[in-house]
Amino acid sequence: MHLANRLNRLGTETAFAVSAEAAAFASDSNKVYPFHLGDMNIKTPQNIIDAAFNAATAGKTGYCPNAGIPALREALAREISDSRGVAYTRDNVVIQPGGKPSIGKFVLTLMNPGDEILYPTPGYPIYESQIEFHGGRAIPYGFIEGHKNFELDPGAIEDSITPRTRALIYNDLHNPTGAESSSEEMAAIAELAIKHNLFVLSDEAYFDIRYASESQSIAALPGMKERTVILYTFSKKFAMTGWRLGATIGPKPIVDCVAKLNVNDESCSNHFIQYGAIEALTGPQDGPLEIRQTLQKRRDIAVAVLGTIPGVRCYKPNATFYLFPNVTNLMKSKGLYDDYEKFRQRVMYETGVSFCTRAHFGRVQDNESQRYVRLAYSGIEANEIEEGLGNLKRWAQE
Amino acid sequence: MHLANRLNRLGTETAFAVSAEAAAFASDSNKVYPFHLGDMNIKTPQNIIDAAFNAATAGKTGYCPNAGIPALREALAREISDSRGVAYTRDNVVIQPGGKPSIGKFVLTLMNPGDEILYPTPGYPIYESQIEFHGGRAIPYGFIEGHKNFELDPGAIEDSITPRTRALIYNDLHNPTGAESSSEEMAAIAELAIKHNLFVLSDEAYFDIRYASESQSIAALPGMKERTVILYTFSKKFAMTGWRLGATIGPKPIVDCVAKLNVNDESCSNHFIQYGAIEALTGPQDGPLEIRQTLQKRRDIAVAVLGTIPGVRCYKPNATFYLFPNVTNLMKSKGLYDDYEKFRQRVMYETGVSFCTRAHFGRVQDNESQRYVRLAYSGIEANEIEEGLGNLKRWAQE
Repeated sequence: MHLANRLNRLGTETAFAVSAEAAAFASDSNKVYPFHLGDMNIKTPQNIIDAAFNAATAGKTGYCPNAGIPALREALAREISDSRGVAYTRDNVVIQPGGKPSIGKFVLTLMNPGDEILYPTPGYPIYESQIEFHGGRAIPYGFIEGHKNFELDPGAIEDSITPRTRALIYNDLHNPTGAESSSEEMAAIAELAIKHNLFVLSDEAYFDIRYASESQSIAALPGMKERTVILYTFSKKFAMTGWRLGATIGPKPIVDCVAKLNVNDESCSNHFIQYGAIEALTGPQDGPLEIRQTLQKRRDIAVAVLGTIPGVRCYKPNATFYLFPNVTNLMKSKGLYDDYEKFRQRVMYETGVSFCTRAHFGRVQDNESQRYVRLAYSGIEANEIEEGLGNLKRWAQE
Repeated sequence: MHLANRLNRLGTETAFAVSAEAAAFASDSNKVYPFHLGDMNIKTPQNIIDAAFNAATAGKTGYCPNAGIPALREALAREISDSRGVAYTRDNVVIQPGGKPSIGKFVLTLMNPGDEILYPTPGYPIYESQIEFHGGRAIPYGFIEGHKNFELDPGAIEDSITPRTRALIYNDLHNPTGAESSSEEMAAIAELAIKHNLFVLSDEAYFDIRYASESQSIAALPGMKERTVILYTFSKKFAMTGWRLGATIGPKPIVDCVAKLNVNDESCSNHFIQYGAIEALTGPQDGPLEIRQTLQKRRDIAVAVLGTIPGVRCYKPNATFYLFPNVTNLMKSKGLYDDYEKFRQRVMYETGVSFCTRAHFGRVQDNESQRYVRLAYSGIEANEIEEGLGNLKRWAQE
């Protein structure tokens, strides 16, 4: 069967293969500790579910406007204005079926074939996939392991900029590393964008999954609002991953084009669940608070145990629900330095601990000498974290 | 602001402008009879809503597989196998956030830039938009007004086929005309597809909105299953337009690519509403029966009144919820033969009857001498149909 050539450039989330392998192992009566999941094992707060259900029962089962219902766009504009410190109206907001659709629609709206877009690797693998699928060149930038955090190197990023560079994808509060820009670092990225006239996709999926200090958005820096598109999602803060509801937020000309893409791609997002999202934003906030507290406890336990495992080094990020321990020495001590997959599989089959490695998050670059794995603690209970990482520790000590 | 060039090739549903104009007119305390809506003013049956919300309350609020939950794919494969008379398994089914996503994903999966795809005009305007947006050439084919139905001309379609033709979009039970192929006509289209090795997107959105006789699918004809992709939607049969839930059904290699597009575009469709769809397919069928009966009554009244209006000629289609009366003589008698928009606006402002015209459904071709408008009766009650078309009749007689 002769399929379109562009499919040769389409990537995927290879992490799904890890899930499948873990499920197969578990179905053989083996205990699996699921650190590989980016999903959450926490239910959406019931008041949000009820609001959506009431809307459906009240007849909100027909189409809604392609950009979303005005009341939700309004509520979200207010929330983003307040939390980011930058003024948006509902004309800057277009509702999407998830956070992810903002990636492809950003690329389709701003990139011509042959254009270059800078993106983080390690990073969410859909960035490079969407850029290349639509005929662009995905230009990677990496992170440096700093003293307390993973850091960007604005100088190195600037060296990658060419006359064809159109945009930069920036995921502060970063999947998979948990990296967070200092104010200086964020300002340096903004300066680059302005100097080289780049659009920025600011993937702010984890903006509200934060345990200390405050999140900041690059959109709020001077000169940035007019060139920044914010990827917003209801998925994490409100444990609504399976609802598929988010938004693209940015300058009106871009948002209008994205809304026109909605007309072509899916008409609109589900109508009645948008009433659940209004309740999420404007109703009682004890649901999201409890979600954050649950996640924080898991983080603390995971970081504490990881700190005692020989050959493993791990930061304690203030945000996201990911840890990205450096396992270089552990891999070396097991003779597996050169094989992420073999390392991952041996750990799972011998300890039950299942995780993704750095190799699941964008193409590994030639100059990477350090080795990392990603532990997600959004889908695993605190006691299982303790037990699983205890197994990993004994295995490391063998 | 410099946006991507491909946006110049992106179309839209111009019918939204009619909705906006009708809403503005109504807000001035004018009575509007909404025949322009493709939406339904009928609520989703409550058992379907309940099933979705029981699933959400039971915790189905996390991600589901990118191709949809296995139980729904299974149930839909069974339903399509039974109703179309062609055997599918769940491996042939990938769930989508609506019927519409199947159009863009079909194009992305099978068309290279420069390839040609045949599509109906008048027809759903997203066909030509998606083909051209992704760099293809949209090659139109039209309908002939026959004795009891709009008909295709397979000879004329074949004349449009070139070595670059990759696919044909076929929307039997057709929006906006209500056209339905005879068995002979459908066989002739299938023969063309096989002879010229074309893929077929069979848009079967209205397969179950039928008041007499039985629907048939081109996928069931010999040699067609392996080249046909069915666009399925829950929107019409179950009055679920605002749920955004449908499926792409076809050969496994194509369906697998479409599922990979899901990973890139929106991860998956909303998880818990898929349990509502299982209830729709396998639960009590009095809901969809009542929906069909309601629509049939509306159709009968509309066709009866239209038949008495001077200068108007209209079939009584056995399927869809659209009528496509020939208004050539009425437009001529009003001196508006050459201006669809002026005709539409005069009718709305002088009678309250709001409809879309042929010009809202794909580019008008040079050789079209007859004039048509589309009346949708999915969003207007029977008594309003009678009253509105009564106004139109008086206006025609003036």
